[in-house]
Amino acid sequence: MGNSVVLKGNLLYSTQLNEITALPDHYLVCENGTVSGVFAQLPERFSGLELRDYGDRLIIPGLVDLHMHAPQYTYRGLGMDMELLDWLNVHTFPEEAKYADLDYAQRAYEIFVRDLARSATTRISLFATIHREATELLMELLERSRGVKALVGKLNMDRNSPDYLREASAAAAAEDTALWIAQTRGRFQNVAPIITPRFTPSCTDALMERLGRLQRETGVPVQSHLSENGSEIALVQELCPDTRNYGETYSRYGLFGGEGCPTIMAHCVHCPEEEIDAMQNNGVFVAICAQSNTNICSGVAPVRTYLNRKMRVGLGTDIAGGAHLSVFRAMVDAIQASNLRWRLLDDRLKPLSVAEAFYLGTKGGGAFFGKVGSFEEGYECDAVVLDDENLPHPQPMSLIERLERLVYLSDERNVYAKFVAGQAVDL
Amino acid sequence: MGNSVVLKGNLLYSTQLNEITALPDHYLVCENGTVSGVFAQLPERFSGLELRDYGDRLIIPGLVDLHMHAPQYTYRGLGMDMELLDWLNVHTFPEEAKYADLDYAQRAYEIFVRDLARSATTRISLFATIHREATELLMELLERSRGVKALVGKLNMDRNSPDYLREASAAAAAEDTALWIAQTRGRFQNVAPIITPRFTPSCTDALMERLGRLQRETGVPVQSHLSENGSEIALVQELCPDTRNYGETYSRYGLFGGEGCPTIMAHCVHCPEEEIDAMQNNGVFVAICAQSNTNICSGVAPVRTYLNRKMRVGLGTDIAGGAHLSVFRAMVDAIQASNLRWRLLDDRLKPLSVAEAFYLGTKGGGAFFGKVGSFEEGYECDAVVLDDENLPHPQPMSLIERLERLVYLSDERNVYAKFVAGQAVDL
Repeated sequence: MGNSVVLKGNLLYSTQLNEITALPDHYLVCENGTVSGVFAQLPERFSGLELRDYGDRLIIPGLVDLHMHAPQYTYRGLGMDMELLDWLNVHTFPEEAKYADLDYAQRAYEIFVRDLARSATTRISLFATIHREATELLMELLERSRGVKALVGKLNMDRNSPDYLREASAAAAAEDTALWIAQTRGRFQNVAPIITPRFTPSCTDALMERLGRLQRETGVPVQSHLSENGSEIALVQELCPDTRNYGETYSRYGLFGGEGCPTIMAHCVHCPEEEIDAMQNNGVFVAICAQSNTNICSGVAPVRTYLNRKMRVGLGTDIAGGAHLSVFRAMVDAIQASNLRWRLLDDRLKPLSVAEAFYLGTKGGGAFFGKVGSFEEGYECDAVVLDDENLPHPQPMSLIERLERLVYLSDERNVYAKFVAGQAVDL
Repeated sequence: MGNSVVLKGNLLYSTQLNEITALPDHYLVCENGTVSGVFAQLPERFSGLELRDYGDRLIIPGLVDLHMHAPQYTYRGLGMDMELLDWLNVHTFPEEAKYADLDYAQRAYEIFVRDLARSATTRISLFATIHREATELLMELLERSRGVKALVGKLNMDRNSPDYLREASAAAAAEDTALWIAQTRGRFQNVAPIITPRFTPSCTDALMERLGRLQRETGVPVQSHLSENGSEIALVQELCPDTRNYGETYSRYGLFGGEGCPTIMAHCVHCPEEEIDAMQNNGVFVAICAQSNTNICSGVAPVRTYLNRKMRVGLGTDIAGGAHLSVFRAMVDAIQASNLRWRLLDDRLKPLSVAEAFYLGTKGGGAFFGKVGSFEEGYECDAVVLDDENLPHPQPMSLIERLERLVYLSDERNVYAKFVAGQAVDL
């Protein structure tokens, strides 16, 4: 019963979009990795479980990062003076090519996996590179660290990429991806594969078609990029003149949500109405990557539009378009970008509140992983214990205010303890 | 000769707006608090000075914060779901009123002063509260900590403020300010007073007139807020119907730059053309407070316009409209806001580069304090030694790249040593 434990402290979590539940000095009961309930007094029937008392600290659901590029971690914060397509060619592609070298991959991924374990993130969906072996190495390192539960994607790229970072053909790319899925699916406790066409500019129709077939055969989920940047969208239109929008370049091959095909699309900054309709109808998850969209000047996604339509929305750090691994920072970035969008572009779309951003970074994105991101009964018990002693203040503060400050001000030093599906993480 | 020292390491600093000078493994010579030069080999004539060898670390000029509210520090990161005037009434004014109690002020200001000393900031211009005694206490704490050189303003407020935070009359406010200046000017080595009408909505014409007279009598510099938010600007127009713009509500009383009246105006988000002309003609310093302007939805200042006109510009953290004390963060905030302004509002105004933001946060703002913010000969020797060992990377990086990463990723843990006018700071 390593995954059964009772955590005591101040519990804060979302059950719905615009409200944070705050329960002072409560018990969170986890049995076999799943939440059995939250209680002001611990019921007698749980008295046999290990109790960890975190005193006046805050206990929140683990944070969820729906979009992040693992090989870009060690050069985050560099080259932020460019737009997407230039930035890919100058910075990203040369760096990702290095992952053909497993020694390099090991050194770089170890840095990332260690920092990720120490963060408040408990679930993450990752892009790796086109290299099958380095991608498996990343999965092994994540499994060993037990710091998160992760989906990991070997990339697919067979066009519009430099020679040194392009797979030989659609068939070769798809076969390699099929082999990788066969070798990794079900092999790990905390890591699983996700089918990842990098984005339409770097995948031929032939490759997309094969990946769609592979998806239907395996049921493995899908992630990619969508409508991030104006030049990118124009390029997609040029490459796929027979589609009405960017989303259709995925959907016509069965890579865009719907029954049996859970899908994350990152960015969704400039989606036309019918693309949004398709995302909504297919239950596609939108990963809001506000800092990246700001850094490389893509724009600001209309998150309020997606929320008004009750679509599925979570947050992504999108390193290295974004520079920060913290999903708290992604919450602030999303709020701030929505503020400026409201002020500068469209005052009909109300900015995000802190409660809404917190929901997106926990339960909103968590839904992609199942019942994840809340302390409601039956949810997987991902929990982060936060210590705010390094943020002293002379005035009294409510629990909600203490959480709000941590959203704006915390870093990994504030992560005091962490549990993934009830399993304690070594920080 | 406590203020004479030779620092050895990788020197990075700005001499002009869009270029960072990077000198690997050089010597920075400081005599009596002033830079005597930078050298690849240490000239024999300096061999008698104490040498501190910082190895492969980066040494940069101390950062400069042109606008920050000291009493708002301990509740930074709270209440970010409002616009300016509501935010002042709900959060700021009740908190500032507590500074009538010197015990409370002591507890709160000690937290601020300690964190400020540990930061990369070496120069700062601060707003305090209307309370003379608490403001003097803040000045004493800053002097004792020796962590920065600071200008500190006792606020003036005699209208449009709650009873509990309003001075009795224009005469009473001005007399109190005059007494405070008499008691504090020349008393400290590292701290000096700055005349601070909070902003036009909270100062009657009678008070402004008296403050203008006081300025001319004492030569003390001036700081205030300008054209931050639409509702604020409309209120100013209503309060001062005989002025053509907000700036004129200061300039007609001699509180808006010009000969003998060094002035900082914070925000400058929505300045009309003739207000910008007046700022330019009078050499007013603009404090760009990008995070605050984003958090409370004020907008984005046209920093490129100010730079194209060769105006005087620096950065402000504007806590608690902004939530972060780090001027590195203020650099990133300024870049990101300029990105979104370019993308969403006006693509004629090119976004800021990292080099430009670094200039603004060092030499740009430093000019308000004299020859400050660079390592050119004759500059006051404010220097910060940065350690980036906690940001490991497998790929080689240039000095400029290492600095760029620190701009995006560093916090106070990266501040390894700090010198203010050649004097070592206890971190």
